[in-house]
Amino acid sequence: MRPLIFISNDDGIFAKGLEELIRMVRPLGEVVVVAPESGRSGSSMSITSTVPVSLTRLSEEDGLTLYTCSGTPVDCVKLGLEHAVCRKPDLVLSGINHGDNSSVNVLYSGTMGVAFEGCLKQIPSIGFSLCTFEKQADFSFLEEAVQHIVGYVLEHGLPSGVCLNVNFPVVELLEGLRVCRMTKGDWSSEWVAATHPHGKAYYWLTGTYRNDEPDAQDTDQWAIEHGYGAITPVQTDVTAYDALAMLNL
Amino acid sequence: MRPLIFISNDDGIFAKGLEELIRMVRPLGEVVVVAPESGRSGSSMSITSTVPVSLTRLSEEDGLTLYTCSGTPVDCVKLGLEHAVCRKPDLVLSGINHGDNSSVNVLYSGTMGVAFEGCLKQIPSIGFSLCTFEKQADFSFLEEAVQHIVGYVLEHGLPSGVCLNVNFPVVELLEGLRVCRMTKGDWSSEWVAATHPHGKAYYWLTGTYRNDEPDAQDTDQWAIEHGYGAITPVQTDVTAYDALAMLNL
Repeated sequence: MRPLIFISNDDGIFAKGLEELIRMVRPLGEVVVVAPESGRSGSSMSITSTVPVSLTRLSEEDGLTLYTCSGTPVDCVKLGLEHAVCRKPDLVLSGINHGDNSSVNVLYSGTMGVAFEGCLKQIPSIGFSLCTFEKQADFSFLEEAVQHIVGYVLEHGLPSGVCLNVNFPVVELLEGLRVCRMTKGDWSSEWVAATHPHGKAYYWLTGTYRNDEPDAQDTDQWAIEHGYGAITPVQTDVTAYDALAMLNL
Repeated sequence: MRPLIFISNDDGIFAKGLEELIRMVRPLGEVVVVAPESGRSGSSMSITSTVPVSLTRLSEEDGLTLYTCSGTPVDCVKLGLEHAVCRKPDLVLSGINHGDNSSVNVLYSGTMGVAFEGCLKQIPSIGFSLCTFEKQADFSFLEEAVQHIVGYVLEHGLPSGVCLNVNFPVVELLEGLRVCRMTKGDWSSEWVAATHPHGKAYYWLTGTYRNDEPDAQDTDQWAIEHGYGAITPVQTDVTAYDALAMLNL
């Protein structure tokens, strides 16, 4: 039986990055897509509990079935695994996101929400991102790298509780792939104030990112800045094990 | 100067659990609250990037200032730290949530989104939850434990990149407090189907939780089930360090 590959994203069903990811992995298996109806950037692992969620089948052709879902990226995975596939997928993929999900961005990312959720469901899971918000970005130079990573994970699996956060720089040709850790950094000056026509202030979330360890060569951002695809293994167990013995409460 | 305590939650500005947390910690410092306008359960670390966010000051009295924000719990922290406080708070608190945020629930939790965000901003942060969805739950028996934990963290701080996920059982009297790790478990059968008056199916997210290690005495769920307040230190660095050397990509 061909591998069953489940795909979602956080840019929505019409995103070019999703279309490109589908195109790249169709040769590797049967594909079922459940993607949000529109963009859900910054969804993290949010779920929809106060309103109901719908699931709509859009098309079904040879080896590719497309659904859209009114919920969040994690809802897409949860609902898709129960109602859009006949068996447990061999792989959950997400993306290709339009925008950088390295460093702390992994925590806010709906793209990585999909991968974390697949991982909780004991399915090897990978989130892919390209470091540009450009809607018509060129993803084609990533095809070989995406197929290599997907093929590797289909063959070898991933450790339990671990999924991959893969971020690609915008370059003509990748220098290669590097397995990395999350860069330490954060966002500051995050809000731009504006004024409503009726006078009240409101705020747009933007911000400036600060890399706290720009010279550390084992980080995802160093890899991206030097032309590599950054592969960061991340885990769903967030226990701070080193802190367990330090707390005298 | 008295400590400055910043509080948010994911049940919204009108939640009883928030009112109770404010009451419990007012003796310990000056309090600024920025809470969502309504419930935001399951918000995880989601942020609002496609629409603007508003911040409204509701009241200001001796040592207590209340704001509400149209965004997510993480937006409340990000916007509050830039526009609702005059200096960096000494502590970020969240809750007291109406509902259990132990085990994998920590990943979906807006309550813990607040604590993770405070932690990213290098402020000692704690999320508190009571394991019941009851809107009029009795929180009063938690007062001593909450004040003890808050006092401890004000005095000792927390390791960098680590915040606390504190979950309390519904009991008459706590057996005590236990420092724990996240329980391994997951949700299944998560959707209940219903039919729209016009005929289309839709789905409510509910589900059944499965504890994969019910006998492990070092977990948060064991503590809760045995009448203890469970204190789980969690971290914002989700790198799977053990997996770094295993990936031969």
